[in-house]
Amino acid sequence: MTAITPLRFVVAPSGFKESLAAEAVASAITAGLRRVVPGAVVDSVPLVDGGEGSASTLAAATEGALVPVRVTGPVGDPVDAHFALLGGSGPKTAFVEMAAAAGLRLVPPDARDPGLTTTRGVGELIRAALDAGCRRILVGCGDSGTCDGGAGALTALGARALDAAGEPVADGGYALAGAVELDMSTVDERMAETELVVACNPHNVLTGPSGVATVFGPQKGASHDQVAALETAMTQWAKVLEHRCGPDLRLVAGGGASGGLGAGLAGAFGARLLSRFDVLLDHTGLDARLADADLVITAEGAIDFQTPRGKVPAEVARRAKRYGKPVIALAGTIGRGARATHDAGIDAYAGILAAPVPLTEAIERAEELVADATERAIRLVLVGSALATVARVAAEAG
Amino acid sequence: MTAITPLRFVVAPSGFKESLAAEAVASAITAGLRRVVPGAVVDSVPLVDGGEGSASTLAAATEGALVPVRVTGPVGDPVDAHFALLGGSGPKTAFVEMAAAAGLRLVPPDARDPGLTTTRGVGELIRAALDAGCRRILVGCGDSGTCDGGAGALTALGARALDAAGEPVADGGYALAGAVELDMSTVDERMAETELVVACNPHNVLTGPSGVATVFGPQKGASHDQVAALETAMTQWAKVLEHRCGPDLRLVAGGGASGGLGAGLAGAFGARLLSRFDVLLDHTGLDARLADADLVITAEGAIDFQTPRGKVPAEVARRAKRYGKPVIALAGTIGRGARATHDAGIDAYAGILAAPVPLTEAIERAEELVADATERAIRLVLVGSALATVARVAAEAG
Repeated sequence: MTAITPLRFVVAPSGFKESLAAEAVASAITAGLRRVVPGAVVDSVPLVDGGEGSASTLAAATEGALVPVRVTGPVGDPVDAHFALLGGSGPKTAFVEMAAAAGLRLVPPDARDPGLTTTRGVGELIRAALDAGCRRILVGCGDSGTCDGGAGALTALGARALDAAGEPVADGGYALAGAVELDMSTVDERMAETELVVACNPHNVLTGPSGVATVFGPQKGASHDQVAALETAMTQWAKVLEHRCGPDLRLVAGGGASGGLGAGLAGAFGARLLSRFDVLLDHTGLDARLADADLVITAEGAIDFQTPRGKVPAEVARRAKRYGKPVIALAGTIGRGARATHDAGIDAYAGILAAPVPLTEAIERAEELVADATERAIRLVLVGSALATVARVAAEAG
Repeated sequence: MTAITPLRFVVAPSGFKESLAAEAVASAITAGLRRVVPGAVVDSVPLVDGGEGSASTLAAATEGALVPVRVTGPVGDPVDAHFALLGGSGPKTAFVEMAAAAGLRLVPPDARDPGLTTTRGVGELIRAALDAGCRRILVGCGDSGTCDGGAGALTALGARALDAAGEPVADGGYALAGAVELDMSTVDERMAETELVVACNPHNVLTGPSGVATVFGPQKGASHDQVAALETAMTQWAKVLEHRCGPDLRLVAGGGASGGLGAGLAGAFGARLLSRFDVLLDHTGLDARLADADLVITAEGAIDFQTPRGKVPAEVARRAKRYGKPVIALAGTIGRGARATHDAGIDAYAGILAAPVPLTEAIERAEELVADATERAIRLVLVGSALATVARVAAEAG
């Protein structure tokens, strides 16, 4: 028999929304793994998608720091948010997680009307990053509770969306239906010398059948009529931004990120809208680490039809497959369309549930469930490796 | 690379209680398997543990027949039951599934007092098998709703449990506390020329801390006081039976099977109490089929601390390990203590749940869930076999 130790694992999970941060998922996977393969070499790479928890994970991954800032929350009340000062060489760089200032989690369930919430706090975080001396700012999108086309963020940075009477429009997406002009004369001057990059899911666009109002409005609490009103407002907002910056922002890739924050920052400040993974994963050195792996384990709260559309496990699989590495994925929930992830390079996936439990209990016990599920999955993998060895021995003997 | 096709699978599951018969589980596993390994050779061996559904599965496995019989149910109402006339060579043999006449399923929830239910119907099935010309009768235990020490079955076959006044005692376990004598003078004479075998779990004994009243009473609906009353009754019943047949039946292995049915049939008729798998699995030719397998897949409704104590997956694993075969198990629910099954020869196990669902939904969709879970598990196994191949190629190149 050929010795196959030590096996080298790369553990590169996303966090589980509303349950476990990526670091905790990675730790739980590693714990489960070591129960079965005590001598395994485990390279742990907790990953971020730009959404909730990304600032904290990126600060840890780059040996940077989290800077706490109190900002205006999505419904107007103050919230304790933060941005990350990234470590490493190069220009002083901040990572602003929009969800920390305007995430859906910060919108009380009885206030979930995405036409009224604001991204003001996101602009305030950007201003705080400028104050800290950063002139390269990455804005992470995802898990937003807003649909204001980034107008709130622009306002916080000194821009003014004006109506036909020349008055500033109210906060929130609905009000943008009445906007006709963007006054940039009072904008924070430091923005001119700042490189602004929006890390987003390029599948998100501002308007139309795949636009933010239609696709994400309902998730954020909008009714059918509210979705229609938001679609009208976003279309008008795109006109206002175009008027200022030229290109049609309605269908720009990533323009719809975080309720149109991408389009707003691109239109007002010329921010570049880049695939979140291209912006963020370089900070983790993921590719080189994948190249060294025997087996890659990724994870996310759900594996389903959305996974291949720009989610962490699909991105990990895509990169792992460049090096021909096998990939398995663990999922809190396996949903409709999960099988499509095989085409995206995920060779096998497993759910973490052991018994019928309510979602709340699964979330509460997620750490233990992930460790146990990893153990079960790796035992199945080892059955396979023994099988192959038996088959080989038999073939050689035969 | 060494060609390892066609892989030979033995699919040997139990049924899932209250959900899927063993045949349906085997079909679902096979379907899931073929999605991933279309060319696999699959040998399907649905297994029985003597309990609910065993008669039907054994009739099918041996190309025998089910004989319908209306009998007295556990609470006295008539129920439509059946026994199996087994096919194959040898003496004409019947398999009587006690659960078909006196199973817990037949006891309405509001009548679940195991001190009052009766095994009369089991005796009536045995009589029907005698009428059919069988002189070899296997009685399958498991899933019973009774705790009458088999007294009801004895009564149906002509025996009489008498109290101190010489009067027959009432039906049910409690009444046995007043029994002092077993009158066999009116017993069906054909029993004398009949080989009676009870297929049981040898872990079940009649009395004491591991006795039927203490261990199974609560499962069948008994309160604390009822358990104590049943323990007293079973102890007295053992004395009555001993008086007739000699050996102390209180701690005989299998005497506690199906609420003491084992002890009753042993005491009254000299029935042999044998491990259910030794009695039943020979009818499936399981061992020879395991010897031919590359990988064995078994399954049960639950995998937990009870699994190694005489459940189907552990028995399959025990036998498979004689031939050094890898075994994986699928489970509706993975419960406390499941990890102990690895020591019993189950190399890896996987749950069937993909998302948090209520138990009722899991039961309803069990067939689909089993097929999907099989697919997921086999994909993990294949990742392992590829891993081993890669490691081998690397080692040979290095």
